Amino acid sequence: MNDRRQPVLGILGGGQLARMLALAAAPLGVRALVVDSAADACAGQVAELVKADWTDYAALEAFAGQVDVVTFDFENVPADTAHWLAKRVAVFPAPRALAVAQDRLAEKTLFRECGLQTPDFKAIDTRAELDEALALIGAPAILKTRRLGYDGKGQFRIRSLADADAAWAALGAQASAHGLILEAFVPFERELSVIAVRGRHGEFRTWPLTQNWHTDGVLSLSLAPAPDVGALQDRATELARTLAEKLDYVGVFALELFVKNGELLGNEMAPRVHNSGHWTIEGAVTSQFENHVRAVIGLPLGDTSARGLSAMFNWIGELPDADPVLEAVDAHWHDYGKQPRPGRKVGHATVCAPNASVLMERLGGIAHALGRDQQVDAALRAVAK
Amino acid sequence: MNDRRQPVLGILGGGQLARMLALAAAPLGVRALVVDSAADACAGQVAELVKADWTDYAALEAFAGQVDVVTFDFENVPADTAHWLAKRVAVFPAPRALAVAQDRLAEKTLFRECGLQTPDFKAIDTRAELDEALALIGAPAILKTRRLGYDGKGQFRIRSLADADAAWAALGAQASAHGLILEAFVPFERELSVIAVRGRHGEFRTWPLTQNWHTDGVLSLSLAPAPDVGALQDRATELARTLAEKLDYVGVFALELFVKNGELLGNEMAPRVHNSGHWTIEGAVTSQFENHVRAVIGLPLGDTSARGLSAMFNWIGELPDADPVLEAVDAHWHDYGKQPRPGRKVGHATVCAPNASVLMERLGGIAHALGRDQQVDAALRAVAK
Ligand SMILES: Nc1ncnc2c1ncn2[C@@H]1O[C@H](COP(=O)(O)OP(=O)(O)OP(=O)(O)O)[C@@H](O)[C@H]1O
Ligand SMILES: Nc1ncnc2c1ncn2[C@@H]1O[C@H](COP(=O)(O)OP(=O)(O)OP(=O)(O)O)[C@@H](O)[C@H]1O
Repeated sequence: MNDRRQPVLGILGGGQLARMLALAAAPLGVRALVVDSAADACAGQVAELVKADWTDYAALEAFAGQVDVVTFDFENVPADTAHWLAKRVAVFPAPRALAVAQDRLAEKTLFRECGLQTPDFKAIDTRAELDEALALIGAPAILKTRRLGYDGKGQFRIRSLADADAAWAALGAQASAHGLILEAFVPFERELSVIAVRGRHGEFRTWPLTQNWHTDGVLSLSLAPAPDVGALQDRATELARTLAEKLDYVGVFALELFVKNGELLGNEMAPRVHNSGHWTIEGAVTSQFENHVRAVIGLPLGDTSARGLSAMFNWIGELPDADPVLEAVDAHWHDYGKQPRPGRKVGHATVCAPNASVLMERLGGIAHALGRDQQVDAALRAVAK
Repeated sequence: MNDRRQPVLGILGGGQLARMLALAAAPLGVRALVVDSAADACAGQVAELVKADWTDYAALEAFAGQVDVVTFDFENVPADTAHWLAKRVAVFPAPRALAVAQDRLAEKTLFRECGLQTPDFKAIDTRAELDEALALIGAPAILKTRRLGYDGKGQFRIRSLADADAAWAALGAQASAHGLILEAFVPFERELSVIAVRGRHGEFRTWPLTQNWHTDGVLSLSLAPAPDVGALQDRATELARTLAEKLDYVGVFALELFVKNGELLGNEMAPRVHNSGHWTIEGAVTSQFENHVRAVIGLPLGDTSARGLSAMFNWIGELPDADPVLEAVDAHWHDYGKQPRPGRKVGHATVCAPNASVLMERLGGIAHALGRDQQVDAALRAVAK
């Protein structure tokens, strides 16, 4: 009956990233079909949802038959699932790229191959190896699970060598299943991220560098374009391009960076749209969500220029009062439609402005009205410079 | 189980306006529930859809129980349905305002009461009244149905008195059911529209005036802010405010205007988000869709300033090749996910630019690549002035 069939984008994981991908896909005429094990996953409010877990191959078989391309909202989809799907339908990013980004060891090894320095690191399998690594790397350091960490979960900060026992007590049990890695703690000057996109035919673009502030390992505030980056922008773009080409990557990814002594160090790569790129919805000509859809579907990429300056507040645990954001000029509210829960990302707000002084005024005004001056303090100082 | 309940916005009609309302509602944390008699109505791709027609009161009863507020994608929802719902749930705009806007006679009468001149008009019930009205108003004139017209449907242009028979043959049968009206044909200099929004507590805003070009009675191209409007902006804003207050209107509406001898004449009022306001998605700080949701839900209204200049192409019947739009800088594609059909609105594209010369270049470039120079010709001349 229908003489026209719209492309269908399958998304593994139905959280806020899938939700924002689906919202960006609609104007492009692309339908989203989301898989999540929770029937109330928030992307299901704006797209069709299949309730299934990652090993429900009957459901995945039906899903694969309905979609043109598969992508990820959730980077920890098991490698087996990704490989299995890739035999049936186009999967972007490809399972190999996903696997590298899922493993802090493989990721940092690749960074070095691409000429990006990293904090000193060492893979750890046993308690004895932790001691050896600590002797080599010294304290402070961070013990992390190699796989399945996100939002600062699966990490233990070792302030002095005396913390080794506590670190092992916290994470040692995960050594055999997920692997562990010890990283030198970097007394960084600032944290930056570069969001990049590569198309199916190799077209490559980056958005302007973003500066990020974390609280308890979770992103709290982003500022874009990051002020005073000078030559770091071109350097980050070139590193992202090298990485993407090495992985034959298709889609959006984020490269999280530390700046120490004015030099970039690679922290990690997120093989998906990223929280530090949410400002691009209003703050860039084309958002990370739209360009991810364009890339994986095989459409031309859109311009990634910033429209002015933007700052993004992350709402963690529960939403604050929306009114100070809704009442401010050029401030944009994003409620993910999730239930509140401690530590959960439930929404964000982006404030845009044509210049630094207007941004400071708007950002400071909203934070003050919400009693959250602290959340923007460091960013205001960075903008004021 | 859920400790948080999101507001639910019921939308009568599931076309592209409902679709774009639902897309704007999601970031505000508002869920959309759409009613349409077609199971494949395009808003159903991004929101939950109830398949029911306007007289299916069992379905409407269930619908009313699920939503917090009801609004319209389709202005010709029967007055009975709107009244029936308004007894059960908040309906915005209110049925009375809807009824006025549904009737060209009531609408033009109201315009005059508000101090807005209109083309000469006369209600027509019989063939004899058509002759009398033509003698009074003269030719050229347009015979229109009072109710249920849209996109130039239900209209007949009378070029000379000799066309009276043909006009009656075309529309006379509708005289008893929908009423007819004869309007003087206005040799206008230009067509403008003002999109306005009024909140539940009376807060009122307008977007900058838009200039519109129609082809065969259907909107073809819009340009915003309309160039060289001078005092007409304030005049249009004041007229829209007077109208809105008189109707105790809540939500977005469009007032379509002719400019003749530099003066505004009222053509019609659309009691909903309007095609000539689609440019606000990217071209304004807050879109008409977001502000309509904010207004009817009772949230503070967002800033309606333009971000620069915008032009909107309407895609009628079928979509052209998307690539010239996707490849252009700051050009935005909107595919409504509908099946192609002659005369059907299936999508639009908005091109934005910081100034007139860049807009001309982008607009002209896209039109040329699509072989549609004609669609933008008049707008390019208007911008060039
Ligand atoms: N080696 C390090 N030195 C200093 N700070 C670090 C180091 N590793 C992590 N951090 C701090 O903790 C934050 C989160 O760490 P990391 O990026 O490894 O966590 P994650 O769980 O993968 O989080 P996400 O994927 O959400 O960014 C970093 O952004 C940084 O602020
Ligand atoms: N009296 C008039 N004089 C000159 N042109 C007219 C007149 N009435 C209508 N038109 C032309 O036809 C177009 C459509 O007319 P009108 O707005 O009445 O139609 P409609 O079917 O209600 O369309 P829509 O609601 O989609 O705007 C107008 O925008 C204008 O270009």
